Amino acid sequence: MNIVVMKFGGTSVADYDCMQQVLAKVIRHRNLGRKVIVVLSAMAGETNKLISFAYQWSDCPDPAEMDSLMSTGEQVSTALFTMILKDQGVASRSVLGWQMPMRTNDKYCRARIQSIDCQTLRTMLEQYDVLVAAGFQGLSPDERITTLGRGGSDTSAVALAAAIGADVCEIYTDVEGVYTTDPNVYAKARKIETITYDEMLEMASMGAKVLQIRSVEFAKKYNVKVHVRSTFSDKPGTIVTQEDNEMEDALVSGIAYDKDQARITLAHVTDKPGVSAAIFSPLAEEGILVDMIVQNPSKNGQTDMTFTVPRGDLQKTLHIMEEVREEIGAEEIYHDTQVCKVSVIGVGMRNHSGVAAKAFQALREENINILMIATSEIKITCLIEEKYTELAVRTLHDAFELDKNNQPACT
Amino acid sequence: MNIVVMKFGGTSVADYDCMQQVLAKVIRHRNLGRKVIVVLSAMAGETNKLISFAYQWSDCPDPAEMDSLMSTGEQVSTALFTMILKDQGVASRSVLGWQMPMRTNDKYCRARIQSIDCQTLRTMLEQYDVLVAAGFQGLSPDERITTLGRGGSDTSAVALAAAIGADVCEIYTDVEGVYTTDPNVYAKARKIETITYDEMLEMASMGAKVLQIRSVEFAKKYNVKVHVRSTFSDKPGTIVTQEDNEMEDALVSGIAYDKDQARITLAHVTDKPGVSAAIFSPLAEEGILVDMIVQNPSKNGQTDMTFTVPRGDLQKTLHIMEEVREEIGAEEIYHDTQVCKVSVIGVGMRNHSGVAAKAFQALREENINILMIATSEIKITCLIEEKYTELAVRTLHDAFELDKNNQPACT
Repeated sequence: MNIVVMKFGGTSVADYDCMQQVLAKVIRHRNLGRKVIVVLSAMAGETNKLISFAYQWSDCPDPAEMDSLMSTGEQVSTALFTMILKDQGVASRSVLGWQMPMRTNDKYCRARIQSIDCQTLRTMLEQYDVLVAAGFQGLSPDERITTLGRGGSDTSAVALAAAIGADVCEIYTDVEGVYTTDPNVYAKARKIETITYDEMLEMASMGAKVLQIRSVEFAKKYNVKVHVRSTFSDKPGTIVTQEDNEMEDALVSGIAYDKDQARITLAHVTDKPGVSAAIFSPLAEEGILVDMIVQNPSKNGQTDMTFTVPRGDLQKTLHIMEEVREEIGAEEIYHDTQVCKVSVIGVGMRNHSGVAAKAFQALREENINILMIATSEIKITCLIEEKYTELAVRTLHDAFELDKNNQPACT
Repeated sequence: MNIVVMKFGGTSVADYDCMQQVLAKVIRHRNLGRKVIVVLSAMAGETNKLISFAYQWSDCPDPAEMDSLMSTGEQVSTALFTMILKDQGVASRSVLGWQMPMRTNDKYCRARIQSIDCQTLRTMLEQYDVLVAAGFQGLSPDERITTLGRGGSDTSAVALAAAIGADVCEIYTDVEGVYTTDPNVYAKARKIETITYDEMLEMASMGAKVLQIRSVEFAKKYNVKVHVRSTFSDKPGTIVTQEDNEMEDALVSGIAYDKDQARITLAHVTDKPGVSAAIFSPLAEEGILVDMIVQNPSKNGQTDMTFTVPRGDLQKTLHIMEEVREEIGAEEIYHDTQVCKVSVIGVGMRNHSGVAAKAFQALREENINILMIATSEIKITCLIEEKYTELAVRTLHDAFELDKNNQPACT
């Protein structure tokens, strides 16, 4: 059985006209003899409407009831879309999370997928050409409705593709694919034809919000080929897949940036064992995601610790640091929110030296001061002053000639 | 286990303030040590909104998808109400039709209840004090969502009460109970304390739209005590129950009327075997409910047939009659929509003669002409000209002294 999974987000099912675009794409696959699983989100704005509704009634809505409430969004969009499909004579039906069933744990509002019963879906695919599956929702061990958290429909789609062994998981969105950088920041940004899971993970986590990060992890784990493309065009988009030989030619795939950063510096911390734990354990307990960490070389038994957190967590972080201040012996605590992370991403840099040097050189030529540096096998990240964000992105994009398909090798 | 079922309709859950009234009533039962199953409808207007939504998208919405769509109405109201209950510290959860499960046949949009798995509900009642059950919805044999048709929440409530062996099924509405006649027509209308299932069936079918007719049939079949009462008051309402000795004192319980009638007369029909079948079989096939039927005595091998149908079916009925006209040899076909059915209802009349005579006499004294008559063991129905409806209702209400609790016996 030749199966394709197609996922459409809230803006793609926002109204009747959009749904007609979706319909045309689904029927094209069907007419080529493929079985189709269409995964739909709630219509744009519906989930937020339901959430604000709940908060009108309750200060602290019960999470399990919240999930029962929120899951109606996809129940509405799948029913309406199936009605249109059936009007066109397509053998189809809607499938809710509990009907698949998409088994999850019982962490309501942010459940994790545990298993999908393929037999039920396979039997349905024998009877129907198109299944219209509700994204975002699952079934807890005690048979209650769960939801997968924001953007969970991407994860639903990839999980279904993995479980059923689909040839490809097409994720439709309102952009034409993944770009070398944000086209709003630099018009020379170029659509990437193929990108690896790891590169996509770095791009997504840095704010290139095309694909939900968990769905990429899922795709990587189960080796699902993901095709990110536009609902409103027929051009091919970006294929997210595992690394192959062809890709090694590309040194750098893209430039990402993330302005949602705040930097905290603890000055003159006593440099003794256990200090790092004293700083970062209470942050972890509060669920605060610490990203970049730099510890200066020790001098006279003292050191400076600098790290970044999401801006929304700054006040909570400062509060916790005041509490541990005495224990760690920090003389001063500084913070700064006018900062931005800019990253150069590419699996190719693993095998080539000089990428970091080239990036630093390019920034220096524009007099952009680098506040912090972090590197991984496939990524170089610089924290810079926020006001230089756009200039830094353009500069790095030019330095690695990302507007061209064939980049020069680093020397 | 002392269990009470409470059903609240769309107007009772229309907004936060209404929900607070519902909350107070539920908590009162809980505080008396009772386990409570609250059956909710969708918030007022929601089901109609969903239906009109579907028709914007599809000319002929698929019934199974329609049910998946419509069932979101109760999914929203049950989740929101449970949130409020939990905020008050009440151990509670929502229960959807498929979670009970409320098993139905697969007639989507008008499914019939087949069975309810009490074990699941009983287990839940051990864990929770209050279950908030979605009315109107069930689960088909192939595990899809069904709905029970308009007013199905009443039937859900009575079915749950029957299955779980509840002490009483309280149906909350925006009136204080069942009245001897429509208080809008006659201010002397009196709230009835106790009424039998059969009387209630006659009252309901005649337009006293307090309880859905199917729910009363269900209550009668499983002997469920139903208490019809107001959401917005604490006064006792009307108990619908099986006949007992006390009730026999009441000769007549109420006067009902129904203006949704059209009369059709087929003049000079050939009086031969098979004529009735030729007239009424095609109507039955079209799902047209024929109510009163009168056949005049035959004269010269010809007869007149007169019957009534709901006004909305008049054109279809006339069309069918034209088609069979030749076969039945009808010389003329008349129709009249300016008619109304008025009924005198009471189990007491079974054991007393003279009720019909008294009713006819009362109407004659007001010069109200009776166009058709139909009688049953507990009902006398007269078809009259529509303009006399209110006068006829008041006249009959007075004739049987329904404004008083103790009516005089017929002589």
